[in-house]
Parts: sequence; C-alpha cells; structure tokens
Amino acid sequence: MRIATFIHQGQRRVGQVSADGLSVTAFALPPEQAALGALALIGAATPATEGAAIALSSVRVEAPIPRPRRNIWCVGRNYHEHAKELQGSVFKNNNANPAAWPIVFTKVPECVVGPTDPVQLPGDAVSAQIDYEAELAVVIGTGGKNIAKADAMRHVWGYTVVNDVTARDVQMRHQQWDMGKSFDTFCPMGPWIVTADELDGQHTRVRCWVNGELRQDGRTEDLIFDIPTLIETVSRGITLYPGDVIATGTPAGVGLGLNPPQFLRNGDVVRIEIDGIGQIENRFVA
Amino acid sequence: MRIATFIHQGQRRVGQVSADGLSVTAFALPPEQAALGALALIGAATPATEGAAIALSSVRVEAPIPRPRRNIWCVGRNYHEHAKELQGSVFKNNNANPAAWPIVFTKVPECVVGPTDPVQLPGDAVSAQIDYEAELAVVIGTGGKNIAKADAMRHVWGYTVVNDVTARDVQMRHQQWDMGKSFDTFCPMGPWIVTADELDGQHTRVRCWVNGELRQDGRTEDLIFDIPTLIETVSRGITLYPGDVIATGTPAGVGLGLNPPQFLRNGDVVRIEIDGIGQIENRFVA
Repeated sequence: MRIATFIHQGQRRVGQVSADGLSVTAFALPPEQAALGALALIGAATPATEGAAIALSSVRVEAPIPRPRRNIWCVGRNYHEHAKELQGSVFKNNNANPAAWPIVFTKVPECVVGPTDPVQLPGDAVSAQIDYEAELAVVIGTGGKNIAKADAMRHVWGYTVVNDVTARDVQMRHQQWDMGKSFDTFCPMGPWIVTADELDGQHTRVRCWVNGELRQDGRTEDLIFDIPTLIETVSRGITLYPGDVIATGTPAGVGLGLNPPQFLRNGDVVRIEIDGIGQIENRFVA
Repeated sequence: MRIATFIHQGQRRVGQVSADGLSVTAFALPPEQAALGALALIGAATPATEGAAIALSSVRVEAPIPRPRRNIWCVGRNYHEHAKELQGSVFKNNNANPAAWPIVFTKVPECVVGPTDPVQLPGDAVSAQIDYEAELAVVIGTGGKNIAKADAMRHVWGYTVVNDVTARDVQMRHQQWDMGKSFDTFCPMGPWIVTADELDGQHTRVRCWVNGELRQDGRTEDLIFDIPTLIETVSRGITLYPGDVIATGTPAGVGLGLNPPQFLRNGDVVRIEIDGIGQIENRFVA
C-alpha cells in the first residue's frame, strides 16, 4: 500500500494512493488522527476509506510524516562508492576500524517539508555550501530495544524518499553534524510511504538529478551497513518507537564529491527517485 | 518562580515550589495541559493555583519537562578546564580553529528521567564506559530564528539541572555523539525549572559528587561559548521553539578525565547541584 498525507479542502487527510499513482482515496480518520499524517496508521488496523478517489494533481501532497515524533535518525558515509568520493574531503574516514560501526546523527523534525515544497537556502552569511543527499528512509512500525539483526526487518513499517540536505561548511565547523543537517526546510520527504510488504528496500535503486543532470545513481545493495544492521545498531540501549525514521545514507555523487565541488544555488531543482517508491522534486530558493 | 512537575494522587500536576523548597502548590490546569509538564506554562499567563500546598516529600517529582518536544540540544567541550582535561583523550580538540564554533549534538527526548529516578546501565556488552556530565540547561521561552547574541537572553524562559550521561565508547565508535548520549534514562533532569528572572545563569556554580566525592566544581563564567552565543549559534538557520532545551556543557572532572579514567558502576550515586536551582541525585543500576 502507498500511503500519502495531503491537504484537501483545507484539511489534512491521509489516504491510499491508487495503483497508477494518479489519485488518492482518503481514510476515515478523526481530524486529530489525520493531523498526524501517516503516523496515524502505524500499529492500527487499516481504516476504511471514505469518499471518491481524488486526483493527486488537485491536492497538496505533504510529507507522509509531516512532523516526525522526534529527530530523524540519519546515517553518514554508508555507501561504498560515496565513502570513496569523500576520501579527498574533510569528511574522509578517520576511524582506525571503519567497518565496525556506522556514523549516526540526527535532523530536527521541524525541517521536514513536502515532496514538491521549496527548500530555503539560508543565505551565504550562514552557509554557501548547500548540498543534496538522496536517501532511502525506513519508517519503524513496531518499536523495540536491542533488536537483533535477524528480527530487524519485522520492525520496518515502510519506506519513503528523503533529501538529507546538508550545509557542508556548518557540518564541518561544529564537528558534530546535527546543526548542518537541521536548517529549516532541509528534509524534503515523500511522495508517500510504501509499506514494507510492497518493496524490498534492500534491493532498490536510488537516483538524483540536479537541474535534469543525473548526479547520483546507486543501489541499496551497496550499503556498507545494511538496514537490519542499522536497526540493530540504533536500538542498542535506545528504545526505537513506532514512527521513528532512519535515513540510510546517500550514494556517491554529492556536490561535495565533484571536482571542483558544486553546491546548490537559487533556482536549482533537485529530483530524487527511488524505484518502487516514487519521486520528490524540490526547488532551492534564496 | 520555581516550577515543578510531579505526580500526586496518580495525576501529573505542575506547580509552584515554595520559598523553602519543601512544598508545592499545583496550578489549575486541564489534564491535557498538565500532561505537558512545565511546557504548559511557556508563553501562557501564569495559571491560578488550586488547593493547599503539598509536601514535596509526599509526591513523586518528575523532570520539569518529562518529554521535551524534540531532541535536546547539547554542547560539547564548553568549559575551558574541561577542554584541557580532554587533551589526553580521543575527544581532544582536533579543530584548527577551536574557538570559532561550539560543538552541538543532541539527546533523544525519551531519555529524560526525573531528579531522583534510577539510571539504567546498559550492560557491559553495550557499554562499559558510562560517565556523568553535570550541566546547566537553558529552557527556551520565546522561539525564533537567527537570534542575535544581544537579544538572546530575552528568549530564555528558565534553567534546570541535567546530567548529560554518556557512554564514552559508544560516543567514540560512531564518531557522531548522539547515540552514545541517548540511551534510555540517560538524561536525569530537575529538580524543577527556575525562571530566568530569578537566576543569573551566566554567573552560577555547577557541582557534581559521585558517591559523596566532589568530582566537578565549575562556574558558568568559565564557559567557552556563553549562553547568548549558544542561542545565536543554534538558531542560525534553525528555528528554535518554546520549550527547546539547550544543555550548555560540563565543567572539568568527568570520569574520563581522571587518571586512570573511572566509569560508573552498579550502585553508584551521582548528585549534581547548581547554585540557585537545586540538586538532582540519581542511582546508576545494572
């Protein structure tokens, strides 16, 4: 099932996207539940739908989880080819035992925006090095703590697409990355959540275009730490909750990795597509 | 005013602590507001009290903000003397220009526990290097973005005490610190919030005892990045919200800085006191 959150007639609704991806049928949810977006469906029986299918082109599609319940978990340097492209940068691997543990940081929930919303460049005085990162995000369905790798996939409720937008200079200067990842509007998400029964997140393709030019083209088989390992890792000593989002890292081809590096400018359009999910496309504006 | 969150007759209440610190008078708040703890009072007129004063010894005092609205902002290596004690560790300063920008990371909201609650050691298989960090935490009252240093103190609603409990080995192995800071129960907070009109957070004393032995004794005048600078920094490009918590860093004397390092064991009791606020005291249990 593909679950979208959208605004129709001034109300936030959650609905099931049609097979052709062109329309959505709203679920019968009380407004305070619909306000949670797709979070309202986690751990609940699928609600009945109500009303006729609505053309997606006639509604405003929001992020499927417009406001995650806490910071989004993110994973750094997690594709083999991306790790290689960073070797010439300040983000090269300094760990004596790089394969042992993933890099985990967070983005604030309030930086989430919808699949076609603009991303606000913060201005050169704050950062002149804004970069894209196309990522598969996992949405946790069943919470837990100290989840074993062998059980991890049973905790996955679904998948969505995120752009882990990053201010490279800010990421570097604070040493810890959360701030450079958390500027307002820095997490486009969508276009919807595909439930885990309909997508094999461990075998799919992640692509990213900037102004129509293909920049990233990776497959999740290339993940250094696969999805079960990430869930096992993040839940060690830390309870994961339903609705937690884990962004799994980005393939090679970020702007920082180009020679010379190329950062995003006013008017640039970044489109990210993941096979089996769909695409998000966001304009960066000054 | 000192504002406590507590459980009385099975209900969460928010109240005003008496001048002698021995009793609390509950505010008249609807239950869904009281459920938010002290967050319910931010930006609102002080509610009327109801009922008689209740002895604090007869209630369970919770963290003043039992569940922050998003991850807690934390600042690393922010006292001059603490920065010195880390120079022999893996957390020494590697930044060419250390004075330029603070280190900012986060702790998940769900790791907050009350001022006398136990802290759960995660087990040696997960971490055998659990450490304390006594810290003054700032609670934001008025939100904002790109807040200038000169205006920053007007955004402070109050102060509380936190123990930024840390798994040193986990902090190190993931390179980014959020995970090693976010284990369940790893953020004791309390005993209450002192509003900004009653405390000068820039001139106070932070002390920490382990099993009665004084380990940390610092003053906030020794902060490398002072409170206005931290608020200016965190709000650059990122909207701060009412109720955001910023833990300002810890003075010298953490267990990692001892020679040899000493980490917390089952039964250890950590007490932290900040002049003008009060104290929290938590037992670490296996």
